[in-house]
Amino acid sequence: MSKDRHIYLNMKTLKEAREIIFERFRPPEQLGVEVVAAPEAVGRALAEPVWAELSSPNFHAAAMDGIAVKAQITFGANQTAPKALTVNKEAYYVNTGHVMPEGTDAVIMIEHVNILDDGRVEIEAPAFPWQNVRRVGEDIVATELLFPQNHVLTPYCIGALLTGGVFSVSVRAKPKVLIIPTGSEVCDWRNLKMREFKAGQVLETNSFVLGKLVESCGGVFSRHKIIADELDKIKQAVNEAVNDDFQMILIIGGSSAGSKDYSKDVILELGEVLVHGVTIMPGKPLVSGVVENKPVFGIPGYPVSAIIAFEQFVQPLLYRLQGQSEPKKKTITVVPTRKIASKLGVEEFVRVKLGKVGARVVATPLPRGAGSITSITEADGIIRIPNHVEGVREQEMVAAELLKPLSSVQNTIVIVGSHDNTLDVLADQIKAKHGHLSLSSSHVGSMGGLMAIKRGVCHLAGSHLLNTQDGTYNVSYIKKLLPNVEIKLVNLVFRDQGLIVPRGNPREIGGIEDLARNDIRFVNRQTGSGTRILLDYRLQQIGIRPDSVRGYHSEEFTHMAVAVAVLSGTADTGLGIQAAAKALNLDFIPVVTEQYDLIIPRTHFESKNIQLLLEIINSPEFKQRVEALGGYSTKSTGTIIEI
Amino acid sequence: MSKDRHIYLNMKTLKEAREIIFERFRPPEQLGVEVVAAPEAVGRALAEPVWAELSSPNFHAAAMDGIAVKAQITFGANQTAPKALTVNKEAYYVNTGHVMPEGTDAVIMIEHVNILDDGRVEIEAPAFPWQNVRRVGEDIVATELLFPQNHVLTPYCIGALLTGGVFSVSVRAKPKVLIIPTGSEVCDWRNLKMREFKAGQVLETNSFVLGKLVESCGGVFSRHKIIADELDKIKQAVNEAVNDDFQMILIIGGSSAGSKDYSKDVILELGEVLVHGVTIMPGKPLVSGVVENKPVFGIPGYPVSAIIAFEQFVQPLLYRLQGQSEPKKKTITVVPTRKIASKLGVEEFVRVKLGKVGARVVATPLPRGAGSITSITEADGIIRIPNHVEGVREQEMVAAELLKPLSSVQNTIVIVGSHDNTLDVLADQIKAKHGHLSLSSSHVGSMGGLMAIKRGVCHLAGSHLLNTQDGTYNVSYIKKLLPNVEIKLVNLVFRDQGLIVPRGNPREIGGIEDLARNDIRFVNRQTGSGTRILLDYRLQQIGIRPDSVRGYHSEEFTHMAVAVAVLSGTADTGLGIQAAAKALNLDFIPVVTEQYDLIIPRTHFESKNIQLLLEIINSPEFKQRVEALGGYSTKSTGTIIEI
Repeated sequence: MSKDRHIYLNMKTLKEAREIIFERFRPPEQLGVEVVAAPEAVGRALAEPVWAELSSPNFHAAAMDGIAVKAQITFGANQTAPKALTVNKEAYYVNTGHVMPEGTDAVIMIEHVNILDDGRVEIEAPAFPWQNVRRVGEDIVATELLFPQNHVLTPYCIGALLTGGVFSVSVRAKPKVLIIPTGSEVCDWRNLKMREFKAGQVLETNSFVLGKLVESCGGVFSRHKIIADELDKIKQAVNEAVNDDFQMILIIGGSSAGSKDYSKDVILELGEVLVHGVTIMPGKPLVSGVVENKPVFGIPGYPVSAIIAFEQFVQPLLYRLQGQSEPKKKTITVVPTRKIASKLGVEEFVRVKLGKVGARVVATPLPRGAGSITSITEADGIIRIPNHVEGVREQEMVAAELLKPLSSVQNTIVIVGSHDNTLDVLADQIKAKHGHLSLSSSHVGSMGGLMAIKRGVCHLAGSHLLNTQDGTYNVSYIKKLLPNVEIKLVNLVFRDQGLIVPRGNPREIGGIEDLARNDIRFVNRQTGSGTRILLDYRLQQIGIRPDSVRGYHSEEFTHMAVAVAVLSGTADTGLGIQAAAKALNLDFIPVVTEQYDLIIPRTHFESKNIQLLLEIINSPEFKQRVEALGGYSTKSTGTIIEI
Repeated sequence: MSKDRHIYLNMKTLKEAREIIFERFRPPEQLGVEVVAAPEAVGRALAEPVWAELSSPNFHAAAMDGIAVKAQITFGANQTAPKALTVNKEAYYVNTGHVMPEGTDAVIMIEHVNILDDGRVEIEAPAFPWQNVRRVGEDIVATELLFPQNHVLTPYCIGALLTGGVFSVSVRAKPKVLIIPTGSEVCDWRNLKMREFKAGQVLETNSFVLGKLVESCGGVFSRHKIIADELDKIKQAVNEAVNDDFQMILIIGGSSAGSKDYSKDVILELGEVLVHGVTIMPGKPLVSGVVENKPVFGIPGYPVSAIIAFEQFVQPLLYRLQGQSEPKKKTITVVPTRKIASKLGVEEFVRVKLGKVGARVVATPLPRGAGSITSITEADGIIRIPNHVEGVREQEMVAAELLKPLSSVQNTIVIVGSHDNTLDVLADQIKAKHGHLSLSSSHVGSMGGLMAIKRGVCHLAGSHLLNTQDGTYNVSYIKKLLPNVEIKLVNLVFRDQGLIVPRGNPREIGGIEDLARNDIRFVNRQTGSGTRILLDYRLQQIGIRPDSVRGYHSEEFTHMAVAVAVLSGTADTGLGIQAAAKALNLDFIPVVTEQYDLIIPRTHFESKNIQLLLEIINSPEFKQRVEALGGYSTKSTGTIIEI
């Protein structure tokens, strides 16, 4: 906490930064070589070309079960003038793989042989030379090239190696990477007792993520113990590492230009800084340098920044070290479900959920913050918005890099709308029963869900919109807002909504009427959410003006976020479901039981995936798990209304 | 070697067989559960849903370096009326990640703060509540679902698990597979001394290939020692295995209907046979059965049959055991370079080399035999020809399943034409210098190469076509056969062609004139090959009629195949290059020095990949390696003639 500031050196674009770094390490430092038994070499890159030592087959071999003959003596045989052959003199019984008896050059399939007696057979057609025979070297000729250097061996290759008499191979040693987590605020989860933190402490997780990414690039990693924000200690660790047998060093954290950010200084004092600051987001505060001719990176501490910095700079270098090019992510065309703004001069990596809805793949942007690890674990793809582009319009066709196979995107059921905890249970149940299916849910409120249906960007929507005229749910909204869409409305649950309050209800809140009290700070849900409509309805019924509720304009997007606001003391109460209160061990004052339905357009309703989803919803197991959450009733779960 | 024959039970189509097997093991036997530390769970499938134990952040945290304030007190600040704030009372210096001081709810970036003195700062704009603050639970809320069961964890996921306070997870145990290689003719490469075989012996390689494939599906394997073709011993091994903790047993070899094929009988005696024989090629002799409720497979012994049987039946079951669906191979549209015939009633898996030539991906079929392991290690894709289709026409658009990433297909240089050993050196050098590039060569003779250029199915052709009128090479053929194609002709090498004879030249062959001798069996090259034209030219020069050469009509497609024919005694001599003779330690009688060129259409010549290839050809390193082969001159290597 000081006002000292460093500044970035000249910021570079992603392209410039990559060029500077890859140029500097070209050719990369040569890796050592390991000799391993052929079967253990799967996934490794050959350090030398491999030439066959043996031919295969190494003898002329029968390729069928039948009789081996010299083709010449069969010429002229036909149905009217079959030829009789003496067994073990002119014809020899052979099975597939047997050595061809001396003097024979063809095999007649057993199905085409008439067995006259123990000593004689008869054929009705001639054989041509080498028919049904695998000749010496037909597959592999000794001395031929089996695989060039840098070839990465697959399980199939093991067959060719062994068959070619190559029982061990020279492969490139795995690149060794030292990962040094730094930061006075981070702590090792393995030292954490009872999951209790000191204020301001966070778990150090990046080193484990990057370590596993190093492994997925064919490398091995060592993790240094955490170093506090002290320049000399970090410097000492880097100095030791470059003089050890590591090919690369990653310093995690402290790569920015803040007062306690030492990565740049460490590299500067020990060697040369190539790049500090790249115009990408996340990932901007990257440092790249050279110490003792080895690449040393300062990796940003935010988890998504760390991953993107790794994938853009460290991963390509690791592949180059092994004589490989970096694998390219597959790209597909998607349409965003809403506008994505982006700053000029920055290349943004926007994480998106993807789903195939109708003929298009729709992309729902996830939170943009680099601190949100779930924004990348939940992502199916990344939309890259270039430096010179200000953003992407809603429904504009853009490219997305896939993080998952296309088939998994095609088997994602996209639900958009109101949040309910039973959706987690549904997501788990569907994955349990149908490993290939996923449920992807985005929480934008009930009205947002209806709009998503209208725009064709989801398969179904979750909704609990109350008609304040007649007390019914959803139907009137659908008729009004989706007049031209055939809809099937499926009840998911009935649930209690109520006021979530701290354990013990210290403010002694009794009901909605208390929200008018001056000492109560309320936290609201966003406009268009069913819960907001419910609140407004109740406030009106009892004659409270919204403006007289303290915190009416402070909005959260999910029940859980409301519960967290109460738990953290940001608010004294909020309206939400019992499950959210129960989950965080808060108290709950029921206010109303409401209906939560799934809105499914008929076009999607008949699809196989939605039918599997409905099967789950109707299963006793699902209902049982939902009831166990508390505050739910499944009395009408699965009931269908056509609209 | 007996005439006893069993018969297949009812053969099934691939679809029928898969349905029978997958239906029988649905749901598959449940795997056990292992609890592992989160970072060690990468690649594993969750046995249970994972719920967050901790929220992240677990405190309100500054998301920028700057000053933390209560937003309310900043309202009204603007450029003409800036607001002064007292440090450590109204404004607190914070760095990214710091705990927000009590009572503050916003961070103003340090860049927007005027520092008046040590105790005071000034701001010129108001802050809104929660700006630049990461609130409790913004990323992860304790109790929320992090990942559903059956989710396969990636390196990214480790970040979410640790951040969510989940330090260990329950994952599905790895399926255990016992692989039992059988066959009296097979031997273990680890027991092979000096690479010497008894006649008829072959190396057992399938168990290692399938073992590695088991691992690539997330399983583990044990390899039983080889069992000879004895029913009782195989039966005993299977019986022990099903009573052990294996989930699956693979018996390799003996799955057909021959007299020494016991897999079916073993399963029949111990349990139930579900399928014997599937109408696929390769892979027909598959046996699938159940013993003690565990799947037992009889896997065919030919290496490609074994791989295809594994991938069609065993792999899907392994994935199902782990709650996963089988990964689908990506499919692209290709055009075959030649007609591919296929039998009705059989689904054929034709292995093909792929390359992007112009706008199309062209597919060159590899040898069809199931015994050729290189037909799958060299393949980039597989064209599946359904039961009811008789074949694929040349240039008909068909689907191919990719065995390699599309990017590697796009970076394959396709050379078709005459075979020369320096192409192996070229393939190795290009992979050494440019890991992302591959050279794929198909050997169809010089004339075949020209035709491939004409049909647009290759990037370049290797050719040594002699004009028997004037002794020049290639140019006159190109002018005549490719009149409308702009060509650059690049010399690769000059090379000796001569008669390949057994070591010591036992028949005392002196030159081409001896081919007319009655005691000499010759082996020829195929029509259209430069070597065949050269032979015909020489025979004509010295007045020998082709028909008087014994073996004139027996054809091989490569120099190496000719050398192998001589080595194996199939022929006494053949015309070929010195490198082939040298490689197999045969003797060589030089007959002529000829010119071997690369024919490159101008449209491809300018491409980056061809330019990289030419760079290699012109490098001293390539020339040096070629000269070292013997029988080559590189005096004109790289010289370009425009046609």
